[in-house]
Amino acid sequence: MIDSYEIVGLIAAILTTSAFVPQVVKVWRSKSTESLSLTMYLAFFIGIVLWLVYGIHLNSLAMILSNIVTGVLALILIILKLRYK
Amino acid sequence: MIDSYEIVGLIAAILTTSAFVPQVVKVWRSKSTESLSLTMYLAFFIGIVLWLVYGIHLNSLAMILSNIVTGVLALILIILKLRYK
Repeated sequence: MIDSYEIVGLIAAILTTSAFVPQVVKVWRSKSTESLSLTMYLAFFIGIVLWLVYGIHLNSLAMILSNIVTGVLALILIILKLRYK
Repeated sequence: MIDSYEIVGLIAAILTTSAFVPQVVKVWRSKSTESLSLTMYLAFFIGIVLWLVYGIHLNSLAMILSNIVTGVLALILIILKLRYK
């Protein structure tokens, strides 16, 4: 059963995750990752994995979905960074 | 009382929020906001405000602190974008 706060969380998830997509598309198209910091994305990725663990603990659907999608996007950027460096 | 999952959440908060700081510093120093999309940052900011509402509902210290800091950083970027455009 999804309550109204869960819907707030899901809209939040869609808005903050979508903001991340143009960066992935840009790197994917340009094959240029010069301006990306690997250290920063690795730290960010570890942070997302920890948010996922925390979201599972809180039993929060919005946090679980959002962090899986953002984690995959961050992982794609890390792989592209390592591949095109 | 802070349990061990709250510590996981707080470490997650530090890692994902810190990843956002270099962007703010870069724009602040360069006074250049050309590469920033206003629409994207507005959507992101609204998303952060909704995450904050959701975090307050879940009574999550990590989410509340993290989204206040990220929200302030995003707001600074939006103000700089409007000022230097």
